[in-house]
Amino acid sequence: MIVSLLTDYGHEDDFVGVVHGVIAGVAPGARVIDLTHGIPRHGVRHGALVLARALPYLPAGVHLAVVDPQVGTERRAVAIRTAEEDRLLVGPDNGLLSLAWARFGGVVEAVDITRSPHRPEPVSATFHGRDLFAPVAAQLAAGAELADAGEAIEPGELEAIELPEPRREEGELTAHVLSLDGYGNAALNVSHDDLAGTGVTLGRQVEIESGGERFLATFTQTFADVGHGEILVYEDAYRSLAVAINRGDAASTLGLDPDDEVRLRPR
Amino acid sequence: MIVSLLTDYGHEDDFVGVVHGVIAGVAPGARVIDLTHGIPRHGVRHGALVLARALPYLPAGVHLAVVDPQVGTERRAVAIRTAEEDRLLVGPDNGLLSLAWARFGGVVEAVDITRSPHRPEPVSATFHGRDLFAPVAAQLAAGAELADAGEAIEPGELEAIELPEPRREEGELTAHVLSLDGYGNAALNVSHDDLAGTGVTLGRQVEIESGGERFLATFTQTFADVGHGEILVYEDAYRSLAVAINRGDAASTLGLDPDDEVRLRPR
Amino acid sequence: MIVSLLTDYGHEDDFVGVVHGVIAGVAPGARVIDLTHGIPRHGVRHGALVLARALPYLPAGVHLAVVDPQVGTERRAVAIRTAEEDRLLVGPDNGLLSLAWARFGGVVEAVDITRSPHRPEPVSATFHGRDLFAPVAAQLAAGAELADAGEAIEPGELEAIELPEPRREEGELTAHVLSLDGYGNAALNVSHDDLAGTGVTLGRQVEIESGGERFLATFTQTFADVGHGEILVYEDAYRSLAVAINRGDAASTLGLDPDDEVRLRPR
Repeated sequence: MIVSLLTDYGHEDDFVGVVHGVIAGVAPGARVIDLTHGIPRHGVRHGALVLARALPYLPAGVHLAVVDPQVGTERRAVAIRTAEEDRLLVGPDNGLLSLAWARFGGVVEAVDITRSPHRPEPVSATFHGRDLFAPVAAQLAAGAELADAGEAIEPGELEAIELPEPRREEGELTAHVLSLDGYGNAALNVSHDDLAGTGVTLGRQVEIESGGERFLATFTQTFADVGHGEILVYEDAYRSLAVAINRGDAASTLGLDPDDEVRLRPR
Repeated sequence: MIVSLLTDYGHEDDFVGVVHGVIAGVAPGARVIDLTHGIPRHGVRHGALVLARALPYLPAGVHLAVVDPQVGTERRAVAIRTAEEDRLLVGPDNGLLSLAWARFGGVVEAVDITRSPHRPEPVSATFHGRDLFAPVAAQLAAGAELADAGEAIEPGELEAIELPEPRREEGELTAHVLSLDGYGNAALNVSHDDLAGTGVTLGRQVEIESGGERFLATFTQTFADVGHGEILVYEDAYRSLAVAINRGDAASTLGLDPDDEVRLRPR
Repeated sequence: MIVSLLTDYGHEDDFVGVVHGVIAGVAPGARVIDLTHGIPRHGVRHGALVLARALPYLPAGVHLAVVDPQVGTERRAVAIRTAEEDRLLVGPDNGLLSLAWARFGGVVEAVDITRSPHRPEPVSATFHGRDLFAPVAAQLAAGAELADAGEAIEPGELEAIELPEPRREEGELTAHVLSLDGYGNAALNVSHDDLAGTGVTLGRQVEIESGGERFLATFTQTFADVGHGEILVYEDAYRSLAVAINRGDAASTLGLDPDDEVRLRPR
């Protein structure tokens, strides 16, 4: 059974290693996949986006996610089962898991694991990844029933994240930056369908307005279709429209941050 | 059998991958856990602290640690067995392993592996992780006897690290920064017991004096108990008193470095 | 079967995790070793050097490498078998694999996998690691025949990297910086044999001229043979001559970049 991990723990400390250790103790046969530990600290929405887009490429299993600014407070800890593929998601009830379960048809079973019988005592106030989430995820990977991991709750009570919608106006598309990757490529909340009728099409020049400044880009298939240092708009590997610079960093050059509004116009 | 790794190799280079490769060649069935490779370069004491606090969360096995500024000189390389849990520790004899073996009841058997029969020839002067420590650790994981890994030595001859002790004076506790994590949280050499009688208790305001400056903090259970940007004192997940800033970086804001003296007073 | 990974994906994003996920889906029994994901972005030659020097320390298997600035263009994707040890290398046909196959006696079989039957549809234009290379590598690890992974091509058609040669002149050796590691140590294109007759020998002082500046170094075996902050020349763990500073960063102090010319003279 696969256990995948997504956190904002980074790689400087022993946090990730300790979580691996706890899982190895409870579920020696589990195969642990580090999806990423590079989520920006406390970046719940960014974590939710990455989890949702990445999970379809992983075998079904137990998917642990911890981006948890409210650790140690009254926020709930949860484990859920998705309608499609029977994936089990474990993490804080702060919306982090919500885009992923939406991707797999919603939640068919949910339990509050805050006081799970699987957690060893004592539980620290600040490291639930080690003391609560990893033990629960490992027990599930080892075959424990979801219903035995905590108290049943209504799926409708779970926290969910709402993403902004792009707006199509005359000759213009108003979008938002969803997330930045480590290269400075900026994914927008724009799918292929949102482009219909906007005049923003493959091969065309596109004007990008952001923060009062205007930039000229080309809508291409891949980076090497434009020169070094030139801006491109492209459908990224997760099928979102994205802004990048060939061999450069679009986020810093265009001053793009998550949630920023970006206007696109054909030229 | 588990083989855990802790080093200061970082993730930019192939050093960690090559160590994994060597282990996979000698002990194909071993499960390798990367405890961390983010120890600051040459940070022997920091590595020793992290190893000691993390190992209790890992299954017993072979625990390889390499932070080794004296690599290639006459410093000894060693492998030891702990009194409790039969853990095997492998690394340079520079104190790196000493806090961990103290945590597990001391050393019951020690061998000098500098010229171990398990090491392949030639051994480079600068990469003993690959050429000496990994081959020995992997042979132990594959079932080799500790006594066959080198020449027996007296446990009392091994290098050990001494940590500073906190001092309780009237209305004041003088502590030291033990280590900083990647978030800028600073762990102090103060346990729960050291606080008895100091007036520094949960829920109270605490004055922190460091480098001639004074800061006001609240002794809380977790980060979200104070506002964004506010300083907290809390018992961290390894049960050390620690200083942090909710959604901030205490080390840089308060100017804290490892070994710095910090005075705590109730307010 | 081992599958090793070398990329320039870094650890901030989910790219590496998704590649692991794809491999786990196709070849659940494969053991995946992350050789490194820290190759500088688009550093094809650096990646080629690291792959060639590291692979001898890994068990033979499927070795996937992706540093691919031309992804999505007409550049070929290939899989090859080496003459020695039957290693299988998978990656873009841009020279990245060429130093590794040279290390193992050359190529005895090569296939163009650009339109491999193993790749699932659709293939994105920008993430061939996930959509093409990982599926092919995993199928090979699961036992598929190399000949079935694509169309046979002539080994002589493959792209290869040429490294600069050092020049021996009277009392002077002109070398080039091959690569820098994360510590700032600079490997030169100089082997032990290249030093014969130059007067640059163990224990001697060596003058290093680079970018018009001259620096004094000592040719030693290991870092601790010189004082803190002093420059050393040494044979590194991969048997290249290298320049370093004990507890310092030679690349930034001496201003060394890959490909820079460096002159060495005995003093």
